[in-house]
Amino acid sequence: MILTVTMNPAIDTAYQLDKLVIDDVNRVVPKKTAGGKGLNVSRVLCQLGDDVVATGLLGGHMGAYMGSLMDADGIKHDFTPIAGETRICLNILHEGNQTELLESGPEISADELEAFTAKFAELVAKADCVTISGSLPKGVPADYYAGMVAECVRHNVPVLLDTSGASLDAALEAESKPTLLKPNLTEINALLGTSYTPEQVNDLAAALKADKRFADIEWVVVSMGAAGSFAFHGDKIYRAKTPDIPAVNATGSGDSTIAGFAHAIAAGSDDVTVLKTGNTCGKLNAMDPQTGHLVIEKWDEVYNAVEVTEL
Amino acid sequence: MILTVTMNPAIDTAYQLDKLVIDDVNRVVPKKTAGGKGLNVSRVLCQLGDDVVATGLLGGHMGAYMGSLMDADGIKHDFTPIAGETRICLNILHEGNQTELLESGPEISADELEAFTAKFAELVAKADCVTISGSLPKGVPADYYAGMVAECVRHNVPVLLDTSGASLDAALEAESKPTLLKPNLTEINALLGTSYTPEQVNDLAAALKADKRFADIEWVVVSMGAAGSFAFHGDKIYRAKTPDIPAVNATGSGDSTIAGFAHAIAAGSDDVTVLKTGNTCGKLNAMDPQTGHLVIEKWDEVYNAVEVTEL
Repeated sequence: MILTVTMNPAIDTAYQLDKLVIDDVNRVVPKKTAGGKGLNVSRVLCQLGDDVVATGLLGGHMGAYMGSLMDADGIKHDFTPIAGETRICLNILHEGNQTELLESGPEISADELEAFTAKFAELVAKADCVTISGSLPKGVPADYYAGMVAECVRHNVPVLLDTSGASLDAALEAESKPTLLKPNLTEINALLGTSYTPEQVNDLAAALKADKRFADIEWVVVSMGAAGSFAFHGDKIYRAKTPDIPAVNATGSGDSTIAGFAHAIAAGSDDVTVLKTGNTCGKLNAMDPQTGHLVIEKWDEVYNAVEVTEL
Repeated sequence: MILTVTMNPAIDTAYQLDKLVIDDVNRVVPKKTAGGKGLNVSRVLCQLGDDVVATGLLGGHMGAYMGSLMDADGIKHDFTPIAGETRICLNILHEGNQTELLESGPEISADELEAFTAKFAELVAKADCVTISGSLPKGVPADYYAGMVAECVRHNVPVLLDTSGASLDAALEAESKPTLLKPNLTEINALLGTSYTPEQVNDLAAALKADKRFADIEWVVVSMGAAGSFAFHGDKIYRAKTPDIPAVNATGSGDSTIAGFAHAIAAGSDDVTVLKTGNTCGKLNAMDPQTGHLVIEKWDEVYNAVEVTEL
């Protein structure tokens, strides 16, 4: 079973408008889905045929509604209930724009977090792989993901961490390391205090080796836009390039890539398969108008066209 | 007990932003209230100390959430459950603008409507006055309000109807008439096919008398902006003028006026008291930043300053 964690989920609500009329009434037909980065990961894993359980914190009536949306999507879920209402994240699609309004979400109490910590320990014991995605809600300390990673390491379960800011910093400073991180070039340069270009991958590899925050992370996958993505794995550097197919909607491609990595890592695949699977999922999501959904019928075409080379 | 009807309620969600950034992420702290015109009426009646029951159709988890919001406001409610999810109406307050996004709301099945019809008949039997506010949801025939009005008339319970379009047309064509209608001058001219100005109230009165759609309606109250509002009541014409106090937020003032009329009519008040109470409520709502809420501590000041004269 692959366990996906979404600590700050949302009811993703999309409004499609020809024109957003300011200071007036706009009538909309909403499209609502169980949202949050971990839910995108879950949906893609379901498409890949994995046994998935989504967990995290779910609150109030809005949380119950989100549960029904997950049921409708066929996503198994085991969230810890909280008192606060689960938030809404609104995406207004208008005149080629995506104007987003993200609610702050509920504040988590110490008791609620303790209940989740216990549930997570139980679920990890049954998991083949864990993904942790997105931000922490209010009331949860920044080092909470670091503790979750340590729990996975204790159980010898691979854990993929996709977050940023203070919670990523805390996880990097901790002794127990995640199995995989997926920063982009800007993010990794910011973390290292460097300004490497795609031409300087060997320097970047050396910097990662020399930095004890990164040295023991099994996979550091750095996306570099048109140059492809580079994976730093032990002493190896891989470069992956996806076929040049135009994106329809790239939102959720990072989450889909995580799903692909988790799928292959949980299956014990070799390095090249891990990288091909992750990159294929990212690409197939970008080709699909729906966020966190793959054009699965193009799997073979894209998978066979993804090039992974060891540098 | 005063019964308020909201057939198409909503979770009113307000986002306050310094600036709405288009095609980017806006972070918001939401303010959510039980919404719909009938809920504004209910809240004002609660402020006036009336025993109020709110009814209508409430659906799914969002409906359960709306129930908890009504509980928090101290509004007694007895809605018919429906399968569809209650809608959200979003009001983005930004740079002096009110940009509204109104969801279409659920479709009502024949069985659900039948269940509500039975509940409404039970509740009307216990009511001193009924208010019916706002639009009908999808799946409900346009003559449904006409049937509700007939049910009130059968029980000899005064009924105030505040709607527009096809459902108002159907109610006007029906034999059983509502006790009170509250169109503005533009609306009544459209209904009559006339173009009367505030100077032509006697002609308007004659036109209402001559039109069998309006002849038997006890109160037709027509707001005419700066000229005040005119009430056509049997053979009498009253003019009401409110004191010249600037509005802070006029949204919900029509609903508050209905609440005032219902309060006074339920209490069996005389004509002048009915008109003074309705106009006072409308004004006190406009003086309050909160929609469907009166600056109740200014009651005496405003009530005493409302001028009602028989023409």
